[in-house]
Amino acid sequence: MEEQTLLQFAPFSSAVDAGFWHHFTQLKLDVLQLNDQAVPMAGSFTNSDTPGLPPRLHVEYNALERRQVPSSWSCHATGKVINTNTIEEFRNRSKQDLLRESAASLWEAITSGRALEDPSLLASFLLFTFADLKKYHYYYWFAFPAFTFPKVMYTKPPQTLSEAFTPKEVSSLLTSYMSQETECDRGFFSITKCGEECAIHPLRDYPSLRTAAKDPDREVYLGISDPSTLPSNPGWTLRNLLTLAAVQWSQQWRSHKVLCLRVITRSGVQNAMHSLVLDVDLGDEADSLLPSEMPPSLGWEKNERGKMGPRMVNLSANMDPTKLAESAVDLNLKLMRWRVAPQLDLGIIHRTRCLLLGSGTLGCAVARCLMGWGVRHLTLVDNGKVSYSNPVRQNLYTFKDCQNGGRYKAVAAAEALLEIFPKMNSKGVVLSIPMPGHTIGESLLKQVKEDVAALEQLIEEHDAVFLLMDSRESRWLPTVIGAAKEKLVLTAALGFDSFLVMRHGMRQAGTGSPQPASTAIPRDSIPGHMLGCYFCNDVVAPGNSTHDRTLDQQCTVTRPGVSYLAAGHVTEMLVATLQHPDKGFAEASVQEHGGVKEGVLGPVPHSLRGFLGRHQLLTPASTAFDQCSGCCSQVLNAYKDEGFEFLLKVFNSTAYLEEVSGLNKLHQCVCMTSQSEGGSSVVVSNNGKSK
Amino acid sequence: MEEQTLLQFAPFSSAVDAGFWHHFTQLKLDVLQLNDQAVPMAGSFTNSDTPGLPPRLHVEYNALERRQVPSSWSCHATGKVINTNTIEEFRNRSKQDLLRESAASLWEAITSGRALEDPSLLASFLLFTFADLKKYHYYYWFAFPAFTFPKVMYTKPPQTLSEAFTPKEVSSLLTSYMSQETECDRGFFSITKCGEECAIHPLRDYPSLRTAAKDPDREVYLGISDPSTLPSNPGWTLRNLLTLAAVQWSQQWRSHKVLCLRVITRSGVQNAMHSLVLDVDLGDEADSLLPSEMPPSLGWEKNERGKMGPRMVNLSANMDPTKLAESAVDLNLKLMRWRVAPQLDLGIIHRTRCLLLGSGTLGCAVARCLMGWGVRHLTLVDNGKVSYSNPVRQNLYTFKDCQNGGRYKAVAAAEALLEIFPKMNSKGVVLSIPMPGHTIGESLLKQVKEDVAALEQLIEEHDAVFLLMDSRESRWLPTVIGAAKEKLVLTAALGFDSFLVMRHGMRQAGTGSPQPASTAIPRDSIPGHMLGCYFCNDVVAPGNSTHDRTLDQQCTVTRPGVSYLAAGHVTEMLVATLQHPDKGFAEASVQEHGGVKEGVLGPVPHSLRGFLGRHQLLTPASTAFDQCSGCCSQVLNAYKDEGFEFLLKVFNSTAYLEEVSGLNKLHQCVCMTSQSEGGSSVVVSNNGKSK
Repeated sequence: MEEQTLLQFAPFSSAVDAGFWHHFTQLKLDVLQLNDQAVPMAGSFTNSDTPGLPPRLHVEYNALERRQVPSSWSCHATGKVINTNTIEEFRNRSKQDLLRESAASLWEAITSGRALEDPSLLASFLLFTFADLKKYHYYYWFAFPAFTFPKVMYTKPPQTLSEAFTPKEVSSLLTSYMSQETECDRGFFSITKCGEECAIHPLRDYPSLRTAAKDPDREVYLGISDPSTLPSNPGWTLRNLLTLAAVQWSQQWRSHKVLCLRVITRSGVQNAMHSLVLDVDLGDEADSLLPSEMPPSLGWEKNERGKMGPRMVNLSANMDPTKLAESAVDLNLKLMRWRVAPQLDLGIIHRTRCLLLGSGTLGCAVARCLMGWGVRHLTLVDNGKVSYSNPVRQNLYTFKDCQNGGRYKAVAAAEALLEIFPKMNSKGVVLSIPMPGHTIGESLLKQVKEDVAALEQLIEEHDAVFLLMDSRESRWLPTVIGAAKEKLVLTAALGFDSFLVMRHGMRQAGTGSPQPASTAIPRDSIPGHMLGCYFCNDVVAPGNSTHDRTLDQQCTVTRPGVSYLAAGHVTEMLVATLQHPDKGFAEASVQEHGGVKEGVLGPVPHSLRGFLGRHQLLTPASTAFDQCSGCCSQVLNAYKDEGFEFLLKVFNSTAYLEEVSGLNKLHQCVCMTSQSEGGSSVVVSNNGKSK
Repeated sequence: MEEQTLLQFAPFSSAVDAGFWHHFTQLKLDVLQLNDQAVPMAGSFTNSDTPGLPPRLHVEYNALERRQVPSSWSCHATGKVINTNTIEEFRNRSKQDLLRESAASLWEAITSGRALEDPSLLASFLLFTFADLKKYHYYYWFAFPAFTFPKVMYTKPPQTLSEAFTPKEVSSLLTSYMSQETECDRGFFSITKCGEECAIHPLRDYPSLRTAAKDPDREVYLGISDPSTLPSNPGWTLRNLLTLAAVQWSQQWRSHKVLCLRVITRSGVQNAMHSLVLDVDLGDEADSLLPSEMPPSLGWEKNERGKMGPRMVNLSANMDPTKLAESAVDLNLKLMRWRVAPQLDLGIIHRTRCLLLGSGTLGCAVARCLMGWGVRHLTLVDNGKVSYSNPVRQNLYTFKDCQNGGRYKAVAAAEALLEIFPKMNSKGVVLSIPMPGHTIGESLLKQVKEDVAALEQLIEEHDAVFLLMDSRESRWLPTVIGAAKEKLVLTAALGFDSFLVMRHGMRQAGTGSPQPASTAIPRDSIPGHMLGCYFCNDVVAPGNSTHDRTLDQQCTVTRPGVSYLAAGHVTEMLVATLQHPDKGFAEASVQEHGGVKEGVLGPVPHSLRGFLGRHQLLTPASTAFDQCSGCCSQVLNAYKDEGFEFLLKVFNSTAYLEEVSGLNKLHQCVCMTSQSEGGSSVVVSNNGKSK
């Protein structure tokens, strides 16, 4: 009996592209979420490495799409990834079981013959992971399952191709190998050599080719694209191919000729002379083996320290900090969709361009809260400068902003947003909003005209407009423009220990006017186009209220917590509106907690009135008022028809506005019930000024 | 008839010390508030100015206390200040009326003879102001009322004292003048000259002195300390003295000798040679005048441009910016007391030392809100570092804080507070809070012991402790220590769209334990010492909940607005508690909006549970639970008796804690009604983690 030597195989080392982890992160966040089932993926290996390199199983950035980058020398490996949700699960899950499950799939592919149809199954792998997406730490462990069966022996040492084949035969072999496109798997195949002609065939043809080989000159080989570059050892993939041979063909053949093809291209010329040629003997173990009796498996990769254990890659250090911040911010939001609110549409929030009129206590807080929701496009408007009393309440300013007369609030706030999150698209606009009753002298006319035009353009360019200023009358112009341009308009106003938050009713295109309140007031709910605006409950038009105000009336004399409540509620009201199927047209319940159509984040009330001293929160809804100074059809039509001329008359005379809207007629009536129908008896003082 | 010349008087220029405006600001903020009545004040003038200087009416820093800095050469002027609340009122108030009112007071003093008793009334003035306390702009206008009566004529040009008196007489005069302390008014007096002896007498003695002057050598003068330094014109004060003479003594005398005393000290020697001596003739107008017929008055000061109009001083430029910020911050708070909450005790808020455990979304927001309320002593505790997802939600951090691995949150937050307001006494402490069920290995023992000691000291050194961390079990240790040290402990916790805010019941000194819930549950309200703590509604002791948490369970998966609501409410709950007469022992109503004893800011509920999706806010109150793992007497006594040894056993075993508290016995009962008595069925999930 000849002396036989045990054939040993060079195991794979994993090589994961950083891009893969980024794609994997996206998949986890957006698709997998808490799912920890196995997900198919693709790997690749090559037989064209320079001698000295270990055999590597590559995982490319697009491995999860299972489309490999086409490459002449790239062979397909079939894998799957199992991701755990916690580091504890990653640690504690039985590695033996995981490997056995992977091996079982492989065994099934081998015994059923599926691996003959798709030989890439023979190069199978498992990627077991825990992704700490907050730190960009990826813990992972590869397994390349293989069986301790059969014991592969050889009687003579492996030959190089140059020893076994003539140059002509090698050249013929390479020509055939290179011409195989998708006809047979590049990783596993059969080879015939007849005379000096060599040819590559699909693996499944091996038995028929060998059976047909009557010609003593004709030889049939099992072939692999060999990832190994070692002089005497083939790569790990051969191991599973020989298991397949043992399982499928042991009845006919115990011995096989194997060609481990390695091809290096130098100066455009392919050289395969260092390929290995083996004569192997699989023994007679296979005879007694049943498909149901899977032999023991092995295959966990060792880590960098040569130990059995996982590896970790920390990608945060290599990433652009700005991008890191962006991903981190998105992460927090996407996590909402994992469990609590799967229907949440983050995209619509992300895309909503928000205009904040007023950059005081409310403006700053709302800007921050919107940013927390993922809003990226934010414009802040204010004409004031940061004063020393501001930073303790207005959370985008610091002491530095107050010095030397103070920076413009809008500019300082927009810059602060960028310092918080560099990906913000934030802008600060220093602008005075003209107001009814604040008479415009000739000298100011040009400036006011420009201011109105600037405000019109700003409202045009945004989707949602927040009225966060400190006087009633400054809300008038943006209320009118917002209604005319059919924008979503939201208001927040502070009292000493109370607040008002409200979404203005949407005025429908074409009609230019709400339904008159008197005609058809719904009983249980009010549709969005019939809801009132900030001025709908008022029986006097806004006028100059800043005149003659004492210090405590000029300042934000309010319990600091009140602005938190108002800012939180008005931001959430926008988001809830965006998540409602009817958006700004969402109906509002007339009763507290009445049954109305809800969005992903619940019903959207018309207004919220909070009373901190009594810990009360009410949600009154009221219909639009047909003589409202802010949104009635008379006013909107006058604005649409006359434009600035109309506005100027209003700036110069509140009485004119009352005449246009019809409020003056109302004043002549004794009975003033109509305007309070559907309205609320709750009044929130609005003397806050955030200078 | 001799040729007569009209005597003209040098008017006052006002000279206001900047310190006055600061005192005035304090008075306005703390005392006057909206009161716009006249307030008495004092001014002064001197007769010791170097020739060339205009006569000045000084208003010193303490002018409102009406105590002048004692000075040999300082004469008293009686004034009042009228402050308006708005710039419009300052502009529009009739200056004619104001002057007339001032002049009427003066006229009354002159005609009634009061001015003889208190001649400083003759140097009267009005200060009319508008103080823009937000900008430190002070608009002001002085009036020095005087009458266009009588027409004062003189027949020979004024002489200097050196021309009229011998050196001996001057010396005698000065000796007498210097020896007058408070016996007569330094501004207005009588003088007798007899031989070479001169003497100063009270003004009221003038008629008797003059009547008694039989001796032809003996001369009687009206005297003033003359603020003027002009060679031929006396100061404005003489004008009113001569009006007095005309009104009081015109029956007897039309002519008077007047000595306008001016004294310069050079090298310690007084020189009065440049004083003026006048012979005046008051004419006979006075004969027909009635006290009820006040003659026309004048006296508004011209401004810097020589026009009739107010002056403005901008003190902000001269002030230390840090002080400016401090005043501005106080201003906003003090304004609350003007109208809406006069009983508010700002001092107690200012002095309350707050310890914030957790520097995440809640910690940052609460710190800012406390700062808005005037809290100055703030310590933040956290063991984490700022990560990229933090700044958009945690409002004390910026992108910079995340880079290079991130700064320690507690340190970055404390620094941010100083950047917002340099007067903060803020500190950041990097500290891990040991938790029940988080087993302590031998290697960590020393560190944990130090951490416990550090936490104990921190709680000892503060008045209010906020539990703002992200896991249930991390609240256990500070709950126990806070109860043992009888501190005010407040909790805030976030769910996805809900929150819990709660004040822990105060454990009374000595008893070390709440009343057992079963003995005496009040029907309508629960006294503060019987209120439950965060753990009182739980039937299992806190254990390791951070183990095996998925990513969405680790992170703050919460609607961003929720943290605003919780932070606002927990801060306001502290402030409302501090403003309650019973402080932490304030009773809480069991019914929503039930009748209980209220503080300045209303009733203080035991807890607030908010549900953003439904826009609900509940105020459940519940009694302490006598087997509570956080505050029952068994636990507090074990902690007090055994200290760290007890804590260590709890860290290593949640079961041990359940044994000590008696919770384990409860688990054996089928009936578990006792612990929910008085409690609430509302449950807020608390899986928020703000890493």
